[in-house]
Amino acid sequence: MSGKKGSCNNKVEAEGSSNGGLLLSCKAWAMSVWEFGRDEPNRVIFSLKVGLAVLLVSLLILIRAPYETFGTNIIWSILTVAIMFEYTVGSTFNKGFNRALGSLLAGVLAIVAAQLALCADRVLEPIIIGISIFIVGTVTSFMKLWPSLVPYEYGFRVILFTYCLIIVSGYRMGNPIRTAMDRLYSIAIGGLVAVLVNVMVCPIWAGELLHRELVKGFDSVADSLEECVKKYVEDDGLDHPEFSKTVMDEFPDEPAYRRCRTTLNSSAKLDSLAQSAKWEPPHGRFKHFFYPWSEYVKVGAVLRYCAYEVMALHGVLHSEIQAPYNLRVMFRAEIEEATGQAAELVRRLGKDIGDMNRTLKASLLKRVHASTERLQVAIDMHSFLLTSSYDRATSAAKTDGDTDANPSPPSETYHEMTRKTSKRLYSWPSREVDAYEEEAAVGNLLVPRMRALESTAALSLATFTSLLIEFVARLGHLVDAVEELSSMAKFKSEVEL
Amino acid sequence: MSGKKGSCNNKVEAEGSSNGGLLLSCKAWAMSVWEFGRDEPNRVIFSLKVGLAVLLVSLLILIRAPYETFGTNIIWSILTVAIMFEYTVGSTFNKGFNRALGSLLAGVLAIVAAQLALCADRVLEPIIIGISIFIVGTVTSFMKLWPSLVPYEYGFRVILFTYCLIIVSGYRMGNPIRTAMDRLYSIAIGGLVAVLVNVMVCPIWAGELLHRELVKGFDSVADSLEECVKKYVEDDGLDHPEFSKTVMDEFPDEPAYRRCRTTLNSSAKLDSLAQSAKWEPPHGRFKHFFYPWSEYVKVGAVLRYCAYEVMALHGVLHSEIQAPYNLRVMFRAEIEEATGQAAELVRRLGKDIGDMNRTLKASLLKRVHASTERLQVAIDMHSFLLTSSYDRATSAAKTDGDTDANPSPPSETYHEMTRKTSKRLYSWPSREVDAYEEEAAVGNLLVPRMRALESTAALSLATFTSLLIEFVARLGHLVDAVEELSSMAKFKSEVEL
Repeated sequence: MSGKKGSCNNKVEAEGSSNGGLLLSCKAWAMSVWEFGRDEPNRVIFSLKVGLAVLLVSLLILIRAPYETFGTNIIWSILTVAIMFEYTVGSTFNKGFNRALGSLLAGVLAIVAAQLALCADRVLEPIIIGISIFIVGTVTSFMKLWPSLVPYEYGFRVILFTYCLIIVSGYRMGNPIRTAMDRLYSIAIGGLVAVLVNVMVCPIWAGELLHRELVKGFDSVADSLEECVKKYVEDDGLDHPEFSKTVMDEFPDEPAYRRCRTTLNSSAKLDSLAQSAKWEPPHGRFKHFFYPWSEYVKVGAVLRYCAYEVMALHGVLHSEIQAPYNLRVMFRAEIEEATGQAAELVRRLGKDIGDMNRTLKASLLKRVHASTERLQVAIDMHSFLLTSSYDRATSAAKTDGDTDANPSPPSETYHEMTRKTSKRLYSWPSREVDAYEEEAAVGNLLVPRMRALESTAALSLATFTSLLIEFVARLGHLVDAVEELSSMAKFKSEVEL
Repeated sequence: MSGKKGSCNNKVEAEGSSNGGLLLSCKAWAMSVWEFGRDEPNRVIFSLKVGLAVLLVSLLILIRAPYETFGTNIIWSILTVAIMFEYTVGSTFNKGFNRALGSLLAGVLAIVAAQLALCADRVLEPIIIGISIFIVGTVTSFMKLWPSLVPYEYGFRVILFTYCLIIVSGYRMGNPIRTAMDRLYSIAIGGLVAVLVNVMVCPIWAGELLHRELVKGFDSVADSLEECVKKYVEDDGLDHPEFSKTVMDEFPDEPAYRRCRTTLNSSAKLDSLAQSAKWEPPHGRFKHFFYPWSEYVKVGAVLRYCAYEVMALHGVLHSEIQAPYNLRVMFRAEIEEATGQAAELVRRLGKDIGDMNRTLKASLLKRVHASTERLQVAIDMHSFLLTSSYDRATSAAKTDGDTDANPSPPSETYHEMTRKTSKRLYSWPSREVDAYEEEAAVGNLLVPRMRALESTAALSLATFTSLLIEFVARLGHLVDAVEELSSMAKFKSEVEL
């Protein structure tokens, strides 16, 4: 098919006219719209549902019978549908609740104020109404800034404008209770249509989205851990892009890292989905009442704590100070084993949540710990490689340290040096340590200052492995959090595979 | 004053009645509302402005003369004010633009559709109107999901409900153009009142808020760096809270860390403020057109990159594997010096942005680099402390590594061990290295496996300093980003102090 499309494109290009270019860009645009809809069919479903809801509520006016019953106030139903219809069932319920309670409160307030104003004489009446409008406007606006009331921001807006509309039109039409009632009826009809269409026609559940979002987070953390470690052990320092250039360019060659960063920034999304999900009745796979949606947010937070370590690992990968390639190759097997096991555990946790299974992770966790321990031992065995054996040179280095206070930043010169070194040591056998030490000692005699920095550079490998070990240490908390979610959400237990 | 309040409270408590309790909680509530308003007076100003705006627009109906001119359609002005009035000038402009363009587009669409429907016969007319409503509902809902159109979400809602209202009431009242015009007039009046009140009465500029938010971010990063390092060098490992308990409890004893995390999560806030600020005319300190608000977002992103390192440092501080206290004390002076200099540079950058000054940071940056280099040299000089001199024991450790594959997680046992060790070594003189080595060697004979882990634990110090050094390395990029902002925003140059 793509071949066919290609030939067609070529034909169009052969025409060479600006008309052809327009056609092409139109086609590209249509393709991207198609892709956008296909990626997430819920988008198309949502759009059609909105169309259906406004059509249904418009029929109340377009058809003669209901129009004659309800009168012109029915246009408020349309407004309600347009404003209330949200993407997920939960947020529609939430907004509907805000709308209903806000309208009700505003109606009661307006009736009270209008009765008060009616008691006063004809001159005082508009003054009382004006003051009451000012007070309601001020108080609702202040309240919606209050942190715990921020989720109900929309409700306060509804109170404000419903109050104003009822009291003002009541003043001009003379019967505030009648006005309030008519308007509440039509708002209720609009709200009902919005809720019914949203729930009955292919409902999009916030809970389902939250569930999928969390699982996606686990996968992206695992992927980006593997990607980052793979780049670290394979990076020979030759084609190292400048940090300053890549920091803003979103690291185009690291798709998993970008997804991980999305996970890091997803706390607001998880929060709002959980907020919406709480409004939803039991549905689909989430069969019992009071499903622990807030646990999803907590698991998400622990997952983010793990992801911070991945970010730190990524920071070391793109750090200005790099451990020599040969050193990284030396620990490659252990690092890759520990990483592989850790990533597998994270993926398994995500998969279990996704399938709503509850399995014991003890053996997996044990294996991760064992391989991490092997990495620790390997580092420990070769720890002399990470530092220079300075025992006798302490005093010499000390004076060196004092003269070293001159301000030229070390990273650049060092960086170039590493490239040369890594080229030179490229074919290094990973265990012939004595030879390495000799060479290092020669280097020491020639360039003492660089050698000092080389040692710090070798410590960069220690940093990388420490962060990896810390990541594994945090996995225990992640397992605990998932276990708590599993028990609270009553995931079905399975025998451990 | 607080003493007076205390005695008053005591008196109330002495009454002992539930009435008194209610009074007390009312008082506490009033106090917190007062605090909330005093923390940020803009909140009170905003609330009063909303009250004023709805009052002004209500006057158009309450007073006889304008009401007779505009008729009942004027209630749409109230709705517009209530919906359009936002906290900052920029977002009010933005919403006003959405409202105006949306209403205009909807009006044009509705007139076209209504004329089409009028051409058809009486039976077809409602069908055409119904289909057009469905199409508009579907298309606007789909478009507002498109990523680049998400900021205009409100505009699409406006198109939808304005279109429905005009075409439906036009169908029933017979003159769609007249209906559309009347409604557009009253919406324009509402919008005008909202904008005028928002700009004329104590305007709250999004640009000013963005400026302050960014400066606050610099301070919080500097504060939390210092706090974290201070805790690290002072922490003797005795009162180390469990990570699992603190991870969710927001680290109550670390206020700066929490502010730093707020900074990390502030990307959405900076984005939306910058989005609003672009709508604002030159004002206050931001005198020229096309002020580079998007640069603020970029500087914020680089600052977050620095903050990620602080998060990683914080991770090491609360890590399960800790370097012994005596080791930390040994490098304390160097670590604190480097930290102090780095924090000063960050604060200085923040202050310069805050004061809109442009100073050369070269000398400060040099000093930071110099002190970081001293830290590197110190680490290098004492690097043998970070690892064990394993040269001869390689093969022994290797077999150890193989047997070590049993799965018990090392962290806990090690953790307890560290506590004892740190107690034992509490009064350690920081430079008597030989004595330390002897003791370590004794430990080695007794508990070889723990010793392996102790070495990894000592590497945790290397991790901490590496991360600190990486933080300093990233400061260069931060200086660059601030420099670019300064030049684009034309901050006034000063001679370097």
